Amino acid sequence: MNMIRARERLVVIGGDAAGMSAASQARRLKGPDELEIVAFERGHFSSYSACGIPYWVGGDVAERDDLIARTPQEHRGRGIDLRMRTEVTELDVPGGRVRFRELESGGESWLSYDQLVLGTGARPTRPPLPGIDAPGVHGVQTLDDGQALLDTLEGLELTPGRRAVVVGAGYIGVEMAEAMMNRGYEVTVLNRGPEPMSTLDADMGRLVHRAMTGLGITMVDDAEVTEVLTDGDGRARAVRTEDAEYPADVVILGIGVRPETTLAEAAGLPLGEHRGLLTDQAMRVRGYENLWAGGDCVEVLDLVSGRERHIALGTHANKHGQVIGTNIGGGYATFPGVVGTAVSKVCDLEIARTGLREKDARRAGLQYEKVVIESTSRAGYYPGAATMTVKMLAERRTGRLLGVQIVGREGAAKRVDVAAVALTAGMTVEQMTSLDLGYAPPFSPVWDPVLVAARKAVAAVRAGRT
Amino acid sequence: MNMIRARERLVVIGGDAAGMSAASQARRLKGPDELEIVAFERGHFSSYSACGIPYWVGGDVAERDDLIARTPQEHRGRGIDLRMRTEVTELDVPGGRVRFRELESGGESWLSYDQLVLGTGARPTRPPLPGIDAPGVHGVQTLDDGQALLDTLEGLELTPGRRAVVVGAGYIGVEMAEAMMNRGYEVTVLNRGPEPMSTLDADMGRLVHRAMTGLGITMVDDAEVTEVLTDGDGRARAVRTEDAEYPADVVILGIGVRPETTLAEAAGLPLGEHRGLLTDQAMRVRGYENLWAGGDCVEVLDLVSGRERHIALGTHANKHGQVIGTNIGGGYATFPGVVGTAVSKVCDLEIARTGLREKDARRAGLQYEKVVIESTSRAGYYPGAATMTVKMLAERRTGRLLGVQIVGREGAAKRVDVAAVALTAGMTVEQMTSLDLGYAPPFSPVWDPVLVAARKAVAAVRAGRT
Repeated sequence: MNMIRARERLVVIGGDAAGMSAASQARRLKGPDELEIVAFERGHFSSYSACGIPYWVGGDVAERDDLIARTPQEHRGRGIDLRMRTEVTELDVPGGRVRFRELESGGESWLSYDQLVLGTGARPTRPPLPGIDAPGVHGVQTLDDGQALLDTLEGLELTPGRRAVVVGAGYIGVEMAEAMMNRGYEVTVLNRGPEPMSTLDADMGRLVHRAMTGLGITMVDDAEVTEVLTDGDGRARAVRTEDAEYPADVVILGIGVRPETTLAEAAGLPLGEHRGLLTDQAMRVRGYENLWAGGDCVEVLDLVSGRERHIALGTHANKHGQVIGTNIGGGYATFPGVVGTAVSKVCDLEIARTGLREKDARRAGLQYEKVVIESTSRAGYYPGAATMTVKMLAERRTGRLLGVQIVGREGAAKRVDVAAVALTAGMTVEQMTSLDLGYAPPFSPVWDPVLVAARKAVAAVRAGRT
Repeated sequence: MNMIRARERLVVIGGDAAGMSAASQARRLKGPDELEIVAFERGHFSSYSACGIPYWVGGDVAERDDLIARTPQEHRGRGIDLRMRTEVTELDVPGGRVRFRELESGGESWLSYDQLVLGTGARPTRPPLPGIDAPGVHGVQTLDDGQALLDTLEGLELTPGRRAVVVGAGYIGVEMAEAMMNRGYEVTVLNRGPEPMSTLDADMGRLVHRAMTGLGITMVDDAEVTEVLTDGDGRARAVRTEDAEYPADVVILGIGVRPETTLAEAAGLPLGEHRGLLTDQAMRVRGYENLWAGGDCVEVLDLVSGRERHIALGTHANKHGQVIGTNIGGGYATFPGVVGTAVSKVCDLEIARTGLREKDARRAGLQYEKVVIESTSRAGYYPGAATMTVKMLAERRTGRLLGVQIVGREGAAKRVDVAAVALTAGMTVEQMTSLDLGYAPPFSPVWDPVLVAARKAVAAVRAGRT
């Protein structure tokens, strides 16, 4: 029986970045008398930084709770009825209700909504290989994952010559390689592709390979994992690839994630080619007035290629939540899209990218000129000046900036932000050459490395102008 | 008697950043058979980094020669007839010639030109106070100045409790305060204004004052210097202000510079309100087809205020030279203007600004909203996360970004580049809130501090929208 409610009810599925940002922002704009907010989270934690897990595992961050931005109690104190360990199991869009199960008690009920936010996140890719679920094999996507890994590592503390095998050489993989180095492990990274960091072009990935090798990490490229070998107790003891076998006291999976859209798919909501939810720019699920989605479960528009992408990144999730909450709260906000910026580090190596790689450009039908330059983070004569390599892609003839990749040391990663803003603004590389960037010897050579690349790109565009 | 020349002659006045960049770029585009290049420099050094002098004095840079990007011999090796210790004393524009004096021999001659580049730089402001020319009082504008200061400091090495008084609290002043701290001096900075760093608003300058005090530097604001007191030998021994007297073993002047346009003025070339040469966007002196000017002797267009400014900064000088050389070499390039970006540091304190201060906005007839936020350089839980304060100005009603100032520690200064690009692109603060900036815990909180400021600025613009 449906009762007439005096106030609207917002239901949020997923108690992490996107969902709880949406809930918090909606609450800021509408009080409890106007809007009831119920949020469901199936895990033990709310609003935490999954991106921080490698640093917690590596020992840079002391406490798990340091990664928690806001506890369930804090959310409840702000008038959000956050129900932990409660999983939404079905979404009845025509009926405007969700079915949820309390995981502890097993009890199930329906709850109706006026507005619904899907913030169901992503799930790790876990290939169905023999041994992949053995004890000693760990993902690092959730705080629970991180805790389980730390428990395993504690049991290995007295093992001499401890060895960690990291499967995957994307952001999570290289960050976990650093974490395990910091914990005193011999680290091997098994990478399916020809170079680590496939979010970079291979020539830039090669620099990462070399630098990581220089840090004492064993990098194995073109490594197709076929099996996790176990010992007599069923514990992981090695990783086998098509070519070799790598002994491991612990195995860490950093193979990436895909959108968690099981509920959405069952409800017939629109999914894109990466299986992420499709939204409009206000973060409404396409075609549904009162359904919203954000964070790792959606696809986002790449403003450079004009195509949808799936990017699991806390900073986007937070922005989505902010936009959704503003719109539900009666305001107006949009998320126009991304340019694909990402930064990472492995010990003192910094890695950054924004915009299109060569293959992205080709896929988008764009012809381009490419340049690669070497420069330094500070004036060459200033102590600590570190080499960085900048790759820049510019559209043929128009000279429009298409993408930048940077590999270097201190001061390399965040330099990519200049290119991210220039991409957003649709600047040409020629326009970039006159950008008024901060200059002083401790911070930059007199020509900032990004400007050096832009100058060379201008020359390439001119030379290729036909 | 004028001979018919088979090739054009480019004459360059001033052998530093703007002049020699212009000469080098012109040479790249036109060989010696097409273009003769003669450059005059009255000093002992060519193409050096004046911005590096504080770090050389402070000991971070070991050798004077480290600051020299290209020696006279190197320039000559590239087909540029660079004549050192040769001063141009007169500019005969109707006759298309310059008169020069060889400073060693005293010999004078005329040389005709087809194209002329004025790169005469800036001269330090030196108020006509009693004692200002006494031994022990030093400017730090040229390498010769730096060497003279170092010679003085060498003589003071055994002086117990050595004291340095720095007059001026702009970039040079605060950088020299750091340099003298690094050399073990007790440092006092005398500042005419109410707060140091008058290129910032006073509220942000106050943060610099506090931080510098915290570093052990004595900061005296509202200090009007009236005299340099000397001892029996005529050496500086103290600086007197209207209110007090500050003992000094060495006095350093960091009061700023003004365009060196004596020659240009005598020749009747167009000067602006700051006494700098006025050029078009190709860096041609306004109204003259074959005269070019760049670097510290010109005024530049501030793209935000629409007014001309004088900014003495190596990075602009290099760009000007590049543009001039390209145009003389038969190419096409422009310098559209600046947004007024500047970064500096004092020990681990970083200071940055771009765009308009409050008073600049008012002077330009712009109404604005202002916000000030505190955030951190890295995720709050990541080791080394340092507080930074970001001030942002947005135009009333339109929300167009007008300016950003940042004071913080590691990672603060170069963050201003994001705002510099956004200003260049004419972005609104609302557009900025969805910028796709690099995020990972070692590099940024999930909302970059610049985005936090932008969000608050959006709210301020909305609240003030009338």
